[in-house]
Amino acid sequence: MGAFKYERLNKSDAALIILDTQEGLFSLVRDYDATQFRNAIYAHAELGKIFNLPVIISTSTETGPNGPTPNEFLQMYPDVKVVKRQGEVNAWDNEEFVNAVKATGKSQIILAGILTDVCTAFLALSLRDAGYGVWANHEASGATTIDIRENANDRMRAAGVQVVSFFAVVGELMRDWRNTPGAAELFPVFDRFFPAYGMVARGHREAVHKGTILPGQDILP
Amino acid sequence: MGAFKYERLNKSDAALIILDTQEGLFSLVRDYDATQFRNAIYAHAELGKIFNLPVIISTSTETGPNGPTPNEFLQMYPDVKVVKRQGEVNAWDNEEFVNAVKATGKSQIILAGILTDVCTAFLALSLRDAGYGVWANHEASGATTIDIRENANDRMRAAGVQVVSFFAVVGELMRDWRNTPGAAELFPVFDRFFPAYGMVARGHREAVHKGTILPGQDILP
Amino acid sequence: MGAFKYERLNKSDAALIILDTQEGLFSLVRDYDATQFRNAIYAHAELGKIFNLPVIISTSTETGPNGPTPNEFLQMYPDVKVVKRQGEVNAWDNEEFVNAVKATGKSQIILAGILTDVCTAFLALSLRDAGYGVWANHEASGATTIDIRENANDRMRAAGVQVVSFFAVVGELMRDWRNTPGAAELFPVFDRFFPAYGMVARGHREAVHKGTILPGQDILP
Amino acid sequence: MGAFKYERLNKSDAALIILDTQEGLFSLVRDYDATQFRNAIYAHAELGKIFNLPVIISTSTETGPNGPTPNEFLQMYPDVKVVKRQGEVNAWDNEEFVNAVKATGKSQIILAGILTDVCTAFLALSLRDAGYGVWANHEASGATTIDIRENANDRMRAAGVQVVSFFAVVGELMRDWRNTPGAAELFPVFDRFFPAYGMVARGHREAVHKGTILPGQDILP
Amino acid sequence: MGAFKYERLNKSDAALIILDTQEGLFSLVRDYDATQFRNAIYAHAELGKIFNLPVIISTSTETGPNGPTPNEFLQMYPDVKVVKRQGEVNAWDNEEFVNAVKATGKSQIILAGILTDVCTAFLALSLRDAGYGVWANHEASGATTIDIRENANDRMRAAGVQVVSFFAVVGELMRDWRNTPGAAELFPVFDRFFPAYGMVARGHREAVHKGTILPGQDILP
Amino acid sequence: MGAFKYERLNKSDAALIILDTQEGLFSLVRDYDATQFRNAIYAHAELGKIFNLPVIISTSTETGPNGPTPNEFLQMYPDVKVVKRQGEVNAWDNEEFVNAVKATGKSQIILAGILTDVCTAFLALSLRDAGYGVWANHEASGATTIDIRENANDRMRAAGVQVVSFFAVVGELMRDWRNTPGAAELFPVFDRFFPAYGMVARGHREAVHKGTILPGQDILP
Amino acid sequence: MGAFKYERLNKSDAALIILDTQEGLFSLVRDYDATQFRNAIYAHAELGKIFNLPVIISTSTETGPNGPTPNEFLQMYPDVKVVKRQGEVNAWDNEEFVNAVKATGKSQIILAGILTDVCTAFLALSLRDAGYGVWANHEASGATTIDIRENANDRMRAAGVQVVSFFAVVGELMRDWRNTPGAAELFPVFDRFFPAYGMVARGHREAVHKGTILPGQDILP
Amino acid sequence: MGAFKYERLNKSDAALIILDTQEGLFSLVRDYDATQFRNAIYAHAELGKIFNLPVIISTSTETGPNGPTPNEFLQMYPDVKVVKRQGEVNAWDNEEFVNAVKATGKSQIILAGILTDVCTAFLALSLRDAGYGVWANHEASGATTIDIRENANDRMRAAGVQVVSFFAVVGELMRDWRNTPGAAELFPVFDRFFPAYGMVARGHREAVHKGTILPGQDILP
Repeated sequence: MGAFKYERLNKSDAALIILDTQEGLFSLVRDYDATQFRNAIYAHAELGKIFNLPVIISTSTETGPNGPTPNEFLQMYPDVKVVKRQGEVNAWDNEEFVNAVKATGKSQIILAGILTDVCTAFLALSLRDAGYGVWANHEASGATTIDIRENANDRMRAAGVQVVSFFAVVGELMRDWRNTPGAAELFPVFDRFFPAYGMVARGHREAVHKGTILPGQDILP
Repeated sequence: MGAFKYERLNKSDAALIILDTQEGLFSLVRDYDATQFRNAIYAHAELGKIFNLPVIISTSTETGPNGPTPNEFLQMYPDVKVVKRQGEVNAWDNEEFVNAVKATGKSQIILAGILTDVCTAFLALSLRDAGYGVWANHEASGATTIDIRENANDRMRAAGVQVVSFFAVVGELMRDWRNTPGAAELFPVFDRFFPAYGMVARGHREAVHKGTILPGQDILP
Repeated sequence: MGAFKYERLNKSDAALIILDTQEGLFSLVRDYDATQFRNAIYAHAELGKIFNLPVIISTSTETGPNGPTPNEFLQMYPDVKVVKRQGEVNAWDNEEFVNAVKATGKSQIILAGILTDVCTAFLALSLRDAGYGVWANHEASGATTIDIRENANDRMRAAGVQVVSFFAVVGELMRDWRNTPGAAELFPVFDRFFPAYGMVARGHREAVHKGTILPGQDILP
Repeated sequence: MGAFKYERLNKSDAALIILDTQEGLFSLVRDYDATQFRNAIYAHAELGKIFNLPVIISTSTETGPNGPTPNEFLQMYPDVKVVKRQGEVNAWDNEEFVNAVKATGKSQIILAGILTDVCTAFLALSLRDAGYGVWANHEASGATTIDIRENANDRMRAAGVQVVSFFAVVGELMRDWRNTPGAAELFPVFDRFFPAYGMVARGHREAVHKGTILPGQDILP
Repeated sequence: MGAFKYERLNKSDAALIILDTQEGLFSLVRDYDATQFRNAIYAHAELGKIFNLPVIISTSTETGPNGPTPNEFLQMYPDVKVVKRQGEVNAWDNEEFVNAVKATGKSQIILAGILTDVCTAFLALSLRDAGYGVWANHEASGATTIDIRENANDRMRAAGVQVVSFFAVVGELMRDWRNTPGAAELFPVFDRFFPAYGMVARGHREAVHKGTILPGQDILP
Repeated sequence: MGAFKYERLNKSDAALIILDTQEGLFSLVRDYDATQFRNAIYAHAELGKIFNLPVIISTSTETGPNGPTPNEFLQMYPDVKVVKRQGEVNAWDNEEFVNAVKATGKSQIILAGILTDVCTAFLALSLRDAGYGVWANHEASGATTIDIRENANDRMRAAGVQVVSFFAVVGELMRDWRNTPGAAELFPVFDRFFPAYGMVARGHREAVHKGTILPGQDILP
Repeated sequence: MGAFKYERLNKSDAALIILDTQEGLFSLVRDYDATQFRNAIYAHAELGKIFNLPVIISTSTETGPNGPTPNEFLQMYPDVKVVKRQGEVNAWDNEEFVNAVKATGKSQIILAGILTDVCTAFLALSLRDAGYGVWANHEASGATTIDIRENANDRMRAAGVQVVSFFAVVGELMRDWRNTPGAAELFPVFDRFFPAYGMVARGHREAVHKGTILPGQDILP
Repeated sequence: MGAFKYERLNKSDAALIILDTQEGLFSLVRDYDATQFRNAIYAHAELGKIFNLPVIISTSTETGPNGPTPNEFLQMYPDVKVVKRQGEVNAWDNEEFVNAVKATGKSQIILAGILTDVCTAFLALSLRDAGYGVWANHEASGATTIDIRENANDRMRAAGVQVVSFFAVVGELMRDWRNTPGAAELFPVFDRFFPAYGMVARGHREAVHKGTILPGQDILP
């Protein structure tokens, strides 16, 4: 099977990019349910807050049809200067953007954007070419069809991009539930953005505090 | 919206039919995953035991390719004489079968069989024609394609058949978790046949007995 | 095609029921993505607030595995006394619940609950039997499989239940964007619960305020 | 099976409605591929031209996020005055719209719009209530999810709405390929809007004019 | 649940219609895999041979793009005069066709054709209107999309058409495996057209003739 | 993108393997429709006849539940001695099988079998390990679920197996429609096993011989 | 993660191939909706016009069932001599075709054709073998099943082919919206071939020119 | 195609890991039907018993929401000390776990766990990094969506992990049905966990013992 080197995300080596996640472009995304996708892009943005990562936000011709970044992201990161590209499709063709990435001094980039096959993939490939490790949060990048998404993700994989879920990014960055940030900080995040887990945590809390055993429950294996 | 009369299953009025659920015919069923379908036919058979219903088992030419009823069903109901049809496709064309149904004295029939579009549908339509209320447990009837299943279920619905899930049958028969059978008898059944619920019940039991609260859990909404 | 009478929801005739939407039962729902379903149940709960409808919340054995109602619902409706059923599967078998429904004095019931095939369907059928108009918000009821959901929705439809989306409920209740509640109250609701629309509204706002035309845009048809 | 009366579309009895097919609302439609849906709404609009039907176009708050009707529709029907509803969700609540429908003097309405569960369904139900025959072109109505679309179509069906394809509408209106409009007018329409058929017609034309038989072809059955 | 009358196919009352199953139109069918659909249309044609039913074949403008009926059908039924419609979309608008149906003296029509939403549905609705029982073999009618097929099948169902599988048609006509035609005639048919069953029958044959028991097999339940 | 060497199938270098395509095992295959899969395994077997390839047939414990090879294959290849493995799961562990492969003197193996994840994948990996080029005809290998099939195909791909369709195998072996075998031999094969193409060829033949142009056809682009 | 070199499309280095996109073969394509696929092949052909690329059109036995290239392509490229292959399946086996590719002097080939698993894949692999960079526009290649398409795309990927969407090709070639061609030329193209984006651009234009803010819109986040 | 070395599972070199398969986490798994997944995790656990492999069980914060290992696993392996991780997400970060793996002295790890993208993938990548061969039983690892599962499996594949089915693991470990464990031990296992095969084996047993040939069966090919 050959040798393999597992490069893990390290919260002190990582930066977060929010790429072309714009209110107009949102309407082009049809590979995920709109509710599910909206959740995913807000969860992606939250990663910077949780793990105190440097954050880069960039937009493409935002006064045109692509529209602006959601205001919530700007409020979350008031000190981040949005790199407003006036024409470059691939953010790496924009000098201000490249400088912003380099200025972070980080070697691991967590990335998501709209559209998966263009904005996300082009930048991911350029970052790989420039020697960065790239973790593409696939849940927070959107495409016009599932077919296009899957081919774009395969293209990134072939370039050594780690195509990963939101929870995988959190897991690699957190590493241990006893760390800070750890369980105390993450459970509220999961409750907002990962309700499959959040509801299990709520149900468990209630069971510990007030739960009673029904007839039949205690004879289960 | 017009008037509607809700006829509910009543455990004292109901009989259970296991129709052509045979080891050879099992291989024709491709509208459900094989594991899921095996679970559903055993769950269906269990209904008679749980609610103490009269049970009728019938097979079609069982020494031929259709094969026999699973032995477990015969062991569950050693006193039930299997109606072994030598040729009739529609069980209602078989006098012994009709007599067996009539002998139960029941007016509500819970039914499942292989194949949905032939064995189950034909009998369901004949039962409706004969004035019975029919509850077709759709999870425990199998077809060669999903397309065929859906059209068959629609055909039954048009005849006034209630096309219902296993859990809906249990819910209508049990009515109240405090009854007998109720929670005490049903949780072990769910643990075997309805693991989505069984695992929640197990997790809750453990939480009540030994659960602890993790940092972050108690600040959830 | 025969005659047809369109009975529309009327905000002065309608009551809202939140049925068995409990933190433990949430984990049984697998016919919708968890994020999408969580959004739907909160949107359903919001309907009472938006249109000032009488609200009835009921739970089934909530100290057991089914767990409690999400706290947010209790906070939204502090004056609503939760009907905590100790055993009845069909809420209509519970006298306190029936009285609560009757006490609203309404003839149109908007309903959603977990699980679609049991809690939602049983109550919907009983309400129809009792003469109520029933609007089942299909997005906010969950089932263990899509197959089970679809059969349960068909069963309700056969009983004259209107199986409708969240947006259809809003549309029938609001009737005119110029009403109160109307556009002013609903856009923020859509932004939270119906982001496909919310993002279009945001993008449009930005275009009106700061939008510029890109080369090529003005020569579109 | 009971008696059945087949009411067919009749080109002298029919009117066409283009409802809320607006450039902003287009982005909410995710139950069809965007290319497929764009094709369907233009094909729907074309029906009026082909069969010389009275056409009614209505929009909902079109200077807001919903946006305007595509210009092509306005150019196709320069004499049609768009009924610009300022607030009514259900077009039947708008007097100008009702008058426009009544002014056609037609009893059969061919309808499509955005969104299926709200604009299309509400009007379809109201039209049925008012005694009209309704043919809902399901390909040209869009919803945010397939699940919502299917429930909305079922709701319309329960009200006696004919939920039909574009080609079924054409077939009922044309009746005979030798009529006018018939093959001569329709093949160019199919070539634009129904390419599965258009390409077969093109290939057949070429074969008649220049086709040669390959070895092996003439020994086919 | 109301009363229901089950009208069953009766081989002495039934006629078979092969409608517009033409080599050019075959290419429009994309709701089934091409191999699966080819199998279904040949199986449908075979029904007449098996049960000695009167057969009616009709085509629409067959020298045009729609193309001819497969030669195999003509060879199976050399005495059937194909009703070659020169323009009528709905076969019931063609006098020769109506006369052919009436000449059979049968009251039950088994039908399939291309396309489901036009040729099959229009004729099925006209036949229902004319008082016939109609069994639409859904596997042998094809549409351009699954979405179109499902709406067309629902439309037929609403008119009292029995939308049924090939095997359901066989089962209703055969009634008893001991009849003629029965097992002796049908197993070879299933082996050709219903391989899920054919292969089970082959495997069983081999097991009876030469099968041996492997270690472990005899301790199964 | 690095260098790439395209190794093509060469009919003088290739041998065909039919692996564990047995009548009992057929019933385990649920990742393809049964009709579609039966077609694919017969098409696969035909490859040896068409291109005069050495053929190896092997079975696993064929008197047990796995059952025998379909008789048609034995009749097609009366001179091929079936390698009847008494226990080895991986055919490459059976010396007689290895010798049979080596005796062909070929370096390119075309392979399909039941089940994809076990019989096909194990042999494919062993053949790659032994230095053979391997073309796995994915249509003619079957698995119990689509999920299992996809992972098995990916596993083979990672080992350098060419996972290809039936038509791709034919295309690489034939190379030119003017060769022998070429169009003359292949069109009848496609008519039987690849009806999407066969029906186009039939329709084209008819158009050349008897086709006429309908009004409207000649004004298409 | 190893090193990666991102080779981007460069409009001065690229040529466009339209391969076997023929009116007869169109009918074999069933992995995409026919409307969606027709759109994709016309969009692919447009690429040459937009970016002024050398274009090569080739067909396979075009007077036979495969049929001719759509006339629109010939009209778009009146100076391109179609390479009419009389038998070679793999276009690279045809000397005239190879010469045509070489005559372009380009090193980057953008390719699409029918069928994906044969025409597209064979040529793509040969081009890779010959040292070309290959961008396969997956939207404009068609296969008989999705399963076949996916395996063919994976095969190309394993050979270093970039399997990319139409929009990704445009994005790599255009690079900057301010270039020529850029926004001015591309928006009309998107309006025709990429309506998800075109409709957003139209809606935005209208909002800038005539949009008004509805109550509620300005209080969105 | 390059050289390939097939490393096969060897029952004397392999150890089994059951990772975070906990009663609370079970509720997060929505990429498989709950019944199917429950079956898969019990089948995975059984592998240690069947092949007498060293087994390692580990859990993550099991008194919290994740819940405990199912009791059945503890009873199957009473001598296995569960490695109860108090916080490490990646089990390889836990020294006790690493020591447990090393103590087995095995070089091949068979692994499954909840969730696929986090627990399973992180450990699999770390094991590959540490030089182990890894066989990830994909059926027994669960994720919240299919999309997440597929990307996680692709990530593991890129690291050289063998992503395999339960039956593939059994096949590689057993190698020959005549071995011990072999047919005698495995058929009962398949009957419980792989019913598609178990039912074929049962049907075959019955046919050998009591089967009779029906008219028509012996004339099948």
